[in-house]
Amino acid sequence: MAFAAEVAAVAGRLSTPIWRDKIQKSLNKNKHLANSRYVQLATVRQDGRPANRTVVFRGFLADDDDSLTFVTDIRSRKVQEVAVNPAAEVAWYFPQTREQYRIAGNLVVIDAAHVDNALLEARGRVWSAMSESGRQQFGWPHPGRPRAAEDPKAWNNPAPGSQDPPLDTFCLVVLRVDEVEQLLLRSNERFRYTHAIKEDGSLAWAEESINP
Amino acid sequence: MAFAAEVAAVAGRLSTPIWRDKIQKSLNKNKHLANSRYVQLATVRQDGRPANRTVVFRGFLADDDDSLTFVTDIRSRKVQEVAVNPAAEVAWYFPQTREQYRIAGNLVVIDAAHVDNALLEARGRVWSAMSESGRQQFGWPHPGRPRAAEDPKAWNNPAPGSQDPPLDTFCLVVLRVDEVEQLLLRSNERFRYTHAIKEDGSLAWAEESINP
Repeated sequence: MAFAAEVAAVAGRLSTPIWRDKIQKSLNKNKHLANSRYVQLATVRQDGRPANRTVVFRGFLADDDDSLTFVTDIRSRKVQEVAVNPAAEVAWYFPQTREQYRIAGNLVVIDAAHVDNALLEARGRVWSAMSESGRQQFGWPHPGRPRAAEDPKAWNNPAPGSQDPPLDTFCLVVLRVDEVEQLLLRSNERFRYTHAIKEDGSLAWAEESINP
Repeated sequence: MAFAAEVAAVAGRLSTPIWRDKIQKSLNKNKHLANSRYVQLATVRQDGRPANRTVVFRGFLADDDDSLTFVTDIRSRKVQEVAVNPAAEVAWYFPQTREQYRIAGNLVVIDAAHVDNALLEARGRVWSAMSESGRQQFGWPHPGRPRAAEDPKAWNNPAPGSQDPPLDTFCLVVLRVDEVEQLLLRSNERFRYTHAIKEDGSLAWAEESINP
């Protein structure tokens, strides 16, 4: 394990995992690209086939929680899929720095009826931070169904304000991370980060250099 | 079904499916972006969890075959995964035109021992069309294993020429397409293309407009 990883493990939340620091640096270096926060999220459908779609990264859950957050509509197919199989893998490619991250873990979907108050608060924060057009979409007709008739009201409903409570269709999606891989195309380096149990029984991130 | 789709169905291979024409147009409009041919390929691992990684689109298989092609190393984990579960979904985001395609189907991996001569020839064509550094990587140490010792020979092996036969590690990956979805973020339109059986029993692509 690299020295920095040891320090992070010993210091607990005085320091973040290396892979989170790396992603934050990649975000900074690629922030001039409009789609640097677009990632591809893979899950498994109820028939055992994979599903894959582009979603917007909405930040880490908290300073002391390295889960990734996204949003979705409770009527979207992935909410049902995740209820059966929460496993997910994100592929995140940064064009400027020519890096890929693969981030694997389990998804938790937080709707209005969620029991955990801290997660409900996070749902509200992400809702408030969204753009007006982003919030408006949660009042649109049922996603994925045959195109709704050309009723302007269906698509031009007024957007809720950032201080309004989230619509019931609005869900926060939290990815609890188990494993991360970073591939650097420029230097042909590849690193794998896994949860490892230390001698004292606590959990820390181990870093391994692997062949590209 | 849209008129153009009917025409394509009746004309057979005199015309390509609408979704293929659309992807070709998207490629043309985004070709100034170095990563416009990078797509995310999701499959399912043997433990039932999803895998997701960025791969390079290597073109459609043929003028009269709409399968997408990619390449991989026979030693990569996805080759074993695909042998057990060939289902895949590609997510392809075009930044310039702000469009996403989701392309679902089944993968076929073509290695040096494949029985179909036409597919073996396609494997050779894609190998020849790759860059020198692309071909060189198939002579590198086993991908995903702990980083090989700092032996320069391990990474600086001479690249095979475009006229040399493909290395045994080189595989063509073919995605046989069953369903395509196009999402246009600018116009908030979404189209689904599915294989449909026509009255005469032949197979054609049906187009459906669905809610974004």
